[in-house]
Amino acid sequence: MGLETVCVNGQRRRPFSFDTLLCPSCRGPLDMAQPAGLTVHPAVTLGEGGTPVVHLQKIGRELGVEALFAKLEFLNPTGSFKDRGSALLVSALREHGVRQVAEDSSGNAGASISAYCARAGIRAAIFAPGSAPPMKLAQIAFYGAEVVKVAGDREAVAQACLRHCRQNSVVYASHNLSPLFIEGTKGFAAEAAAQMRPPPDHALFPVGNGSLLIGAWKGYTELASTGDVQRIPRLHCVQSKACMPIAAAHRKTPWTPPPAGADTVAGGIAVRNPPRLHQVLQALDATGGDAVAVEESDIIHWQRRLSHLEGIFVEPTSAAALAGLYDLRKEGRIRPQDRVLVPLTGFGFKDRIPNP
Amino acid sequence: MGLETVCVNGQRRRPFSFDTLLCPSCRGPLDMAQPAGLTVHPAVTLGEGGTPVVHLQKIGRELGVEALFAKLEFLNPTGSFKDRGSALLVSALREHGVRQVAEDSSGNAGASISAYCARAGIRAAIFAPGSAPPMKLAQIAFYGAEVVKVAGDREAVAQACLRHCRQNSVVYASHNLSPLFIEGTKGFAAEAAAQMRPPPDHALFPVGNGSLLIGAWKGYTELASTGDVQRIPRLHCVQSKACMPIAAAHRKTPWTPPPAGADTVAGGIAVRNPPRLHQVLQALDATGGDAVAVEESDIIHWQRRLSHLEGIFVEPTSAAALAGLYDLRKEGRIRPQDRVLVPLTGFGFKDRIPNP
Repeated sequence: MGLETVCVNGQRRRPFSFDTLLCPSCRGPLDMAQPAGLTVHPAVTLGEGGTPVVHLQKIGRELGVEALFAKLEFLNPTGSFKDRGSALLVSALREHGVRQVAEDSSGNAGASISAYCARAGIRAAIFAPGSAPPMKLAQIAFYGAEVVKVAGDREAVAQACLRHCRQNSVVYASHNLSPLFIEGTKGFAAEAAAQMRPPPDHALFPVGNGSLLIGAWKGYTELASTGDVQRIPRLHCVQSKACMPIAAAHRKTPWTPPPAGADTVAGGIAVRNPPRLHQVLQALDATGGDAVAVEESDIIHWQRRLSHLEGIFVEPTSAAALAGLYDLRKEGRIRPQDRVLVPLTGFGFKDRIPNP
Repeated sequence: MGLETVCVNGQRRRPFSFDTLLCPSCRGPLDMAQPAGLTVHPAVTLGEGGTPVVHLQKIGRELGVEALFAKLEFLNPTGSFKDRGSALLVSALREHGVRQVAEDSSGNAGASISAYCARAGIRAAIFAPGSAPPMKLAQIAFYGAEVVKVAGDREAVAQACLRHCRQNSVVYASHNLSPLFIEGTKGFAAEAAAQMRPPPDHALFPVGNGSLLIGAWKGYTELASTGDVQRIPRLHCVQSKACMPIAAAHRKTPWTPPPAGADTVAGGIAVRNPPRLHQVLQALDATGGDAVAVEESDIIHWQRRLSHLEGIFVEPTSAAALAGLYDLRKEGRIRPQDRVLVPLTGFGFKDRIPNP
């Protein structure tokens, strides 16, 4: 196809390959050298994207912003925003004749890759931590993928997956590392830009690996370069205090990953060593965004308030963005008159449901 | 508002009231005398509708039709098509200053009414059979609605809800009976007509009360009357053999409701005495559609095949439509070259997930 990747750190171009997910020189992650269009039509599709934006008046008042909007990313085909990335990645896998892949995931990406692989006729094995929510594991298995539960932390899961790929000559379809996955998430920005004119002043993302935040950054940057948007929202990163590598790095606070793994209700963002950490920091710096780490109890609180006040049922990971909004308002980083967008990333069914 | 209803049987007009859900003369259900537009914008909205249509090539081949399409109705805000009806019904409730409602449901409608009531600031009590899937009950409760579990069959649940409404002067927000709910489901046809040109030859619906089938009939009929579609698809009703009042009536087969309640994996269509039975039969007759009752094992089979072949994860109730398609193909009612549409009505998370 003549596709090329470019190293995030050193800007070195090399031909695209499913087997090269890190720069051989600096071990940094890769981007696509030729960005995909903002409105691609992937060959393998389940109708992902096109998610609604709704005004959250009541919870906005509790959070101190009148103009709070949510983009309901959980209304993607497998119940999370990951489908935007999977559609592009799996389309490329099928185009290249790949018959078998493996991937590691705490749940949502694994379900998404499994669904798109089922549709594409590609066999998938998903490596997941033993602590992953049962519903996500059941969903993955029901798409016909092989679920491999791995003891230990998230890194142990990734290592087990990599070993499996090397030993069995299986393509490692990593949603964290694949530059194609990121290209797919740009669609979030393209749609949001069309749905919110002018663009919001702020957008807050729950961040584990940051694929949605990075995709939104790339998307808005491309839209700004063509004059389709007049400005780029400040993109903010929200993490849990239980797992806050990016917030710590951005705010230059000391943080040591807990040895036993991160114990957080927001399992979707419990990534202790995100490979794209520097790219997320770059996006925050470039857009004037911030990073904040929130309390576990606040995540649960806003998950419940969102459901009670607005009738929107998300998993705890998604509610972290609201907890982050509360903190950034309190710190004065976001003002009452600002227009704010949050993606609501995963359906409430996917994780354990707290008591009402 | 000057709104009027019209009796389905006797065509008598009377002023619309939330308290009159059956014709006082003939006890038949009511329709709105002034149909809502096909593209209404309800005041209370969660961004319902706008669901994608995807081509199901692989499962289509197994079912013997090349041109099989699915409209992913489970990608509505609470995970089922019911949101189309709830948006309109709850908007009217709020406009009329209603503060408190009750409703009976096997799960999906209850979750939907609860979510829209939460958004509208209306208190809701949902009466559900004790056998309703735990996920649906947890979802309803998490929206802040009161869940009232009732022992006995579906009719006992409805009676308990009605008693509660009378004793406490609470509005009975019945999705089965409310003519506003049906008006909301017309949007399905409006969208499908825009997404599939020419319209499909057939559309198959899993039917309990039939609100989506009736809404689709009304929608397509209005579109045909304005020349926006050239013809109306044949609308088919699919039920489970465990609960087949409409299929039995249409095919003039004897069927006695089992005294202990219908034991089916398709809980969403386990309605033994659907109040709109005659209206569904009318829709079938008017469009040249059929009604078919399918085996339990076939429902589960096609639910799994849909997931394995196409990466689409629905609850068993939704898969009944595919089982019905298989039977109607076998009977020769649907031909290999026909274009077929199925709504996939509820997300797979909502019910018990069978083994992969």
